Amino acid sequence: MSAPPPPPPKEEEEEEEGTTTTTTTKRTTKSTIDFLSACGKLKRTLRTGWTKYPGIRSVESVAEHSFRIALMAFVFGTQEEKTDDDDDDDDGLDVQKLVTLALVHDISECIVGDITPHCGVSKEEKNRLEVEAMRTLKETLGSDMGGETIERLWLEYENGSSREARVVKELDKLEMLLQASEYENEHRDVDLTEFYASCDGSFKTERAKRWVEEIMRRRPVR
Amino acid sequence: MSAPPPPPPKEEEEEEEGTTTTTTTKRTTKSTIDFLSACGKLKRTLRTGWTKYPGIRSVESVAEHSFRIALMAFVFGTQEEKTDDDDDDDDGLDVQKLVTLALVHDISECIVGDITPHCGVSKEEKNRLEVEAMRTLKETLGSDMGGETIERLWLEYENGSSREARVVKELDKLEMLLQASEYENEHRDVDLTEFYASCDGSFKTERAKRWVEEIMRRRPVR
Repeated sequence: MSAPPPPPPKEEEEEEEGTTTTTTTKRTTKSTIDFLSACGKLKRTLRTGWTKYPGIRSVESVAEHSFRIALMAFVFGTQEEKTDDDDDDDDGLDVQKLVTLALVHDISECIVGDITPHCGVSKEEKNRLEVEAMRTLKETLGSDMGGETIERLWLEYENGSSREARVVKELDKLEMLLQASEYENEHRDVDLTEFYASCDGSFKTERAKRWVEEIMRRRPVR
Repeated sequence: MSAPPPPPPKEEEEEEEGTTTTTTTKRTTKSTIDFLSACGKLKRTLRTGWTKYPGIRSVESVAEHSFRIALMAFVFGTQEEKTDDDDDDDDGLDVQKLVTLALVHDISECIVGDITPHCGVSKEEKNRLEVEAMRTLKETLGSDMGGETIERLWLEYENGSSREARVVKELDKLEMLLQASEYENEHRDVDLTEFYASCDGSFKTERAKRWVEEIMRRRPVR
């Protein structure tokens, strides 16, 4: 008599609960590290705008810009909380939201790179590429493991659909101008006027206007 | 008859209220940009541990490390909020605190640099230098303009005086190990075993233990 046929392979729903949990947890852990590793590429993604100036010898990365804008967001929000200077447009900002929006505002660039107006890519195409990259990042991390939260924050920033998002858009330009003034002071042969000109009229909040005025004062006299 | 002597210069308290406010606001703005500029030095402060490996051709900056640890903190905290996996030690973490602790945990290094155990500076002296640097940064920004808040967060991290601070200390090591595994995969002649060894027994939370296990799995086989 031949041996009985082997039992059919167990379906996942038939596994013991502990085993299923372990498998899911392992998959989630792998996804999380995949996501963090993908975002790590921002350490090696240069901010394109500066690269056409050979006088700037060490161009910052997107990760470096993102670090300082997040810190700026924290300082901006904390100062708004502490002062009441009749800037109705700045009152009652959510500091946590400012910081997290700043932290994630450029993460799609770990896939598509830093596309600037000089890259020959239309605004619509840039947005399409970034939206797609953000969806990939969400799926990499897992929608229910933080992916959806991060995509939602990114879209909020991208669409400027909250006051905090609009403030972070101003901070994005402020961080760029502060970096420009620092490069100009470090490399006296470099003139970054075009960056200041590109921001004309961008600043709506009183605090950002004061900050940009102070940054302008720091440009070297030519 | 000689002209009357000029009036004595006005004391600040004698100024009209509007003028005093303007002067204070200008000083505050200057202090804020001074602080953000000082922290900007972290973009050019290398993470010392990697510099003794000439095989690593592009060593990350403290700003780059700080960016990813802040993102890690956000993901870690968000995942803790979304799951209930009986990790009593990880439950109910404050995500906002995790992110801001991560963001500021190394900022004293913009003044003292990244001092490692191999730099010939005692642990006590390192701490003394960093505490002093942090005080300078607080005074630069202004105690009441966010300086005290940032110093308090930094001390909370440094002293590990909250659960969030202790988690961020684990994330600090996790980010280092993830970077180590990425360097090892990028530069196959580089062996960073010492960094993994230095973290033995450092991980207490279940999630961090799972993350480090996954990172270890990614090391190239030699």
